[in-house]
Amino acid sequence: MNTRHDPFVFSEASIDKEQLRKTAFNLRWATVDADVIPLTAGEMDFPVSPEIIEAISRHARNGYLGYLPDLGLPSFREAVSENLIQNGVQAHPDQILATDGAASALRIACNAVLSPGDEVITFDPIDFLLPHCSKMAGATVIRCPLEKGTGRLIPNSMDQFVSAKTKAILICNPHNPTGRVLRKSELLEIAEFAERHHLVIINDEVWSDIILGSNPMIHLSSLSEEISQRTITISGFSKSYGISGLRIGYIHCQNVELFKNIIESSDVKSTTAGASVLSQVAAEAALLNCTEWLASYRSHLKEIAEVGSKRLSDIPGFSCPVPEGTFLLFPDISNTEYDEENLSQDLLNMAKISVVPGAERWFGPGAKGHIRLSIATSMETFNEALSRIELFFNHDN
Amino acid sequence: MNTRHDPFVFSEASIDKEQLRKTAFNLRWATVDADVIPLTAGEMDFPVSPEIIEAISRHARNGYLGYLPDLGLPSFREAVSENLIQNGVQAHPDQILATDGAASALRIACNAVLSPGDEVITFDPIDFLLPHCSKMAGATVIRCPLEKGTGRLIPNSMDQFVSAKTKAILICNPHNPTGRVLRKSELLEIAEFAERHHLVIINDEVWSDIILGSNPMIHLSSLSEEISQRTITISGFSKSYGISGLRIGYIHCQNVELFKNIIESSDVKSTTAGASVLSQVAAEAALLNCTEWLASYRSHLKEIAEVGSKRLSDIPGFSCPVPEGTFLLFPDISNTEYDEENLSQDLLNMAKISVVPGAERWFGPGAKGHIRLSIATSMETFNEALSRIELFFNHDN
Repeated sequence: MNTRHDPFVFSEASIDKEQLRKTAFNLRWATVDADVIPLTAGEMDFPVSPEIIEAISRHARNGYLGYLPDLGLPSFREAVSENLIQNGVQAHPDQILATDGAASALRIACNAVLSPGDEVITFDPIDFLLPHCSKMAGATVIRCPLEKGTGRLIPNSMDQFVSAKTKAILICNPHNPTGRVLRKSELLEIAEFAERHHLVIINDEVWSDIILGSNPMIHLSSLSEEISQRTITISGFSKSYGISGLRIGYIHCQNVELFKNIIESSDVKSTTAGASVLSQVAAEAALLNCTEWLASYRSHLKEIAEVGSKRLSDIPGFSCPVPEGTFLLFPDISNTEYDEENLSQDLLNMAKISVVPGAERWFGPGAKGHIRLSIATSMETFNEALSRIELFFNHDN
Repeated sequence: MNTRHDPFVFSEASIDKEQLRKTAFNLRWATVDADVIPLTAGEMDFPVSPEIIEAISRHARNGYLGYLPDLGLPSFREAVSENLIQNGVQAHPDQILATDGAASALRIACNAVLSPGDEVITFDPIDFLLPHCSKMAGATVIRCPLEKGTGRLIPNSMDQFVSAKTKAILICNPHNPTGRVLRKSELLEIAEFAERHHLVIINDEVWSDIILGSNPMIHLSSLSEEISQRTITISGFSKSYGISGLRIGYIHCQNVELFKNIIESSDVKSTTAGASVLSQVAAEAALLNCTEWLASYRSHLKEIAEVGSKRLSDIPGFSCPVPEGTFLLFPDISNTEYDEENLSQDLLNMAKISVVPGAERWFGPGAKGHIRLSIATSMETFNEALSRIELFFNHDN
């Protein structure tokens, strides 16, 4: 249909490394030496879809960039709601709060539900933001270990971690860093557990558009009205559309009382919080006009994930499953001579590859013996990174 | 030099009411009946400067809108610092934190300084955001009354409100809602008071570019190194450039320890907070390229403030000084037959003019007997609003 969406979009030629070296922060191109390939933060190397840029420019040309409705632009809330409905969730625009990013949404959700002295259950490993936001709200974080190798929820493993103080369970689906897309049976077990113990489920679905395998993304709130009533879903646009600098995400909550607490905790009504108008306009354009772009991006990521997992698994001591979702590889490197910290350090110094170590500070103790690599770049750049890693191990062995 | 900056820019012809009715929320055009003129929230009816729109579009066209440095774009922090230096403050880019709006900056500052059980001193009347953010941080708000009529700090009036629990004093300069630009003697008295009682000064200068009278804006931190060391200044771009929907402001703090607490309290390092890249780019353009536009805007506001104050003061029972700063009129209406609430209600219902009542919830008990009107519109629209108010009183009397 449109040449902008042909495979060329996700080739090396479309990446502007000069711009990336100026603009890509958070451990990426602008923060590393010129000879280093960063495979760190979960963000793509490709420019954003032209539809997003056009929507921003068009809105800016209207000339007015003043105060917004406190919960978000009606058109943004409608686009989000419509997208959730397409995913099987009984959403309504009135249940949507625009937030300045998914991470901010997570913090607002935790503040709405948790008080000092409360406990939350989350998993091990899991991205640092979930425990971080729980702690910021004053709660104690209890981690339920996931099955090594698969990242699967171990049946009946959660009950032992619950106490009278437990208020919420925090999940991430697709899961960062394991790349697992939770099965219906896992989601149902979590929901039943939450119901049995009267817990709120804080449900991070920021990766839900990046499904690479055959297991479908099942949105927790699509499972039943009862489950939806105890769930706060947070999501954003940084992973799927590369607009983390715009800081745009949202909260969906069907439970009226809980949603009131979320609004209160966000403080949007006083104007101390909210999402930028151009960011909402950009996200709306992403949802309405970038379906084809996103499908093409997903195809590219699928291809690169397969190549990357295979080449990494071929390195002695590495085991690297193909991620079912996310654009993250999370190889087990515990059968090499390295631990996650010294491998990451040596890869940086000697192979000029920057990765995220499976350190407790990033993912919890269960990430030990792993490194995490973002694959959201061109095949050429990722193959070059893989060659450097292989060469490092060949020289080393 | 540039026809875009001629007086036409601030005429009725340049206002796009159709756009305002679609985009101006927070008690403004998009939230009132079609026959109502809103003079409520502090935001202009004029489109933003073309330089700001051009800067946004140019940056978006680069194609990359990814993660930023956590404290803000280096170029944004430099532009803010340079602007403060021009205003006599010994600022440095390292002392600047980009925030998603001035209101957010105020909340971050309060969270950094205050804990539950603390007390703060602020003034009466004063904009609700200062006490609001203090209360959100758990502090008790003690109000020191300002002199009626002038809004002057009454000499030696603050000491009676201090206790062992007092941690901070919150000021707003130019003052919302009185429109007073604080004199050097007042600022020095506040600084000496803060020093004597070891208080942090949280200093809201969001109106500092809107100086209409002959009293110069004196930036608190320009007075001395000692004063600057105990001051947190917050500011933004919504009042001067009409970009509240972009949610962009900043914190300046020269005190290294205090600034560390601010960063910690903001949580920018975890990515749960920050300012959108396009908002920082827009604010940078405002500071670097819109000096002439701002001077022209100020001239317009000065003219309209004089006309408005005169016509309102001519209404029996009204007393309306010309504001020294801000684009707010704050007439004393206590010698009419109305109180602030029923006058605001009747003006809305009968004169189709929406104003902010001098209610305790907005400004504290000291605002009683006043209404607040924003004048940031064209002379034509404001004259029409004044005519409606006059007619209301003529019919009424």
